[in-house]
Amino acid sequence: MRTFIIKANKAHTRADFSLKDLPGTSGRIDLLCRSLNSAFLLSHGFRKNVRVWLNLNGPPDPPKTIRFEGSEIKPKTINPDEISLAKIIIKALKVGEGIKEPAKEYPVLPGVYVSNLRFEDIIRRTIKNSTLYYLHEEGKPIERVNFKGNVTFVLGDHEGLAREDEAFLEGIAEKVSVGKKSYLTSHVIAYVNIFLDNLL
Amino acid sequence: MRTFIIKANKAHTRADFSLKDLPGTSGRIDLLCRSLNSAFLLSHGFRKNVRVWLNLNGPPDPPKTIRFEGSEIKPKTINPDEISLAKIIIKALKVGEGIKEPAKEYPVLPGVYVSNLRFEDIIRRTIKNSTLYYLHEEGKPIERVNFKGNVTFVLGDHEGLAREDEAFLEGIAEKVSVGKKSYLTSHVIAYVNIFLDNLL
Repeated sequence: MRTFIIKANKAHTRADFSLKDLPGTSGRIDLLCRSLNSAFLLSHGFRKNVRVWLNLNGPPDPPKTIRFEGSEIKPKTINPDEISLAKIIIKALKVGEGIKEPAKEYPVLPGVYVSNLRFEDIIRRTIKNSTLYYLHEEGKPIERVNFKGNVTFVLGDHEGLAREDEAFLEGIAEKVSVGKKSYLTSHVIAYVNIFLDNLL
Repeated sequence: MRTFIIKANKAHTRADFSLKDLPGTSGRIDLLCRSLNSAFLLSHGFRKNVRVWLNLNGPPDPPKTIRFEGSEIKPKTINPDEISLAKIIIKALKVGEGIKEPAKEYPVLPGVYVSNLRFEDIIRRTIKNSTLYYLHEEGKPIERVNFKGNVTFVLGDHEGLAREDEAFLEGIAEKVSVGKKSYLTSHVIAYVNIFLDNLL
């Protein structure tokens, strides 16, 4: 099982943005849509062994967390284009309006859940049965990592993780790098997926 | 210099599609938008050493070819999201309406040109000063290729290249593979870019 956890610092936590201008109105939910595309899609195929956590921390009601569970998602739910993926996020944010219980996940679609889980909650739930890696350009080169069993990759958005998040991950998640440059989140996910496929 | 040539068999050659539903109305111009994103964008950066040829062969007026020249493109022209990239393609298709000369390129924006060049024309222009590779899952593993100088990668869209295109490329472009699975065009471009960065 591969898990990707994406912390989006500015992504809106209510469906108050325009599909016509995701980058300008949503706190970069476009980036999250492309990350879903990279995490799940093959050419005419779908990765059932992938889980994605999107952790949204923008206005007006942070945090909102959307979990995508590859093994449960129905065919044709995850389409490649940004607009259709943004519509799923909108649906999740609508279900997530006004939820109170911090630890409970609410169903949105088969395999899609929304909650008020915080970044730290996601990490704590994940670490129980997965090795954690934090993708960062200053990490250990990915080809020198000995991947075994369930693996989880933590990524930031266009602003990267905040210092307190990095501090929280220290000792929990090894820093791993796909290269010396700073790459877009969706490109890193695509690279990691193909890299791991080739190890098998 | 890195060049990516993408042959899109069904991509519309006039701006007769809807931005609200690119996958359903444009012959998959959404795929071309994500390919531009993968080819050019770094996190807070832009790859000036990249050229992209989009070769559109869908209705109603094929072929239309749009060249993106990284070294000439102005900052903030290539944004990450599909809609803003689709707007550039629309602009190019509008400039391309009714052009007659098959060999002439018309300016759309700084670094963006439109023409009636055919796939074969693009290949012939490129091969003069670049080594050609055809990205295909049955090709030679990319890590065993000895890349030198200018390199060009030919990719298909969601349907892949037609048999006659493959026949045309035989002996001209070595088949290279990033892995045994069939990956989305934009994921392959992201992978190749990061892979080549790491060789330097």
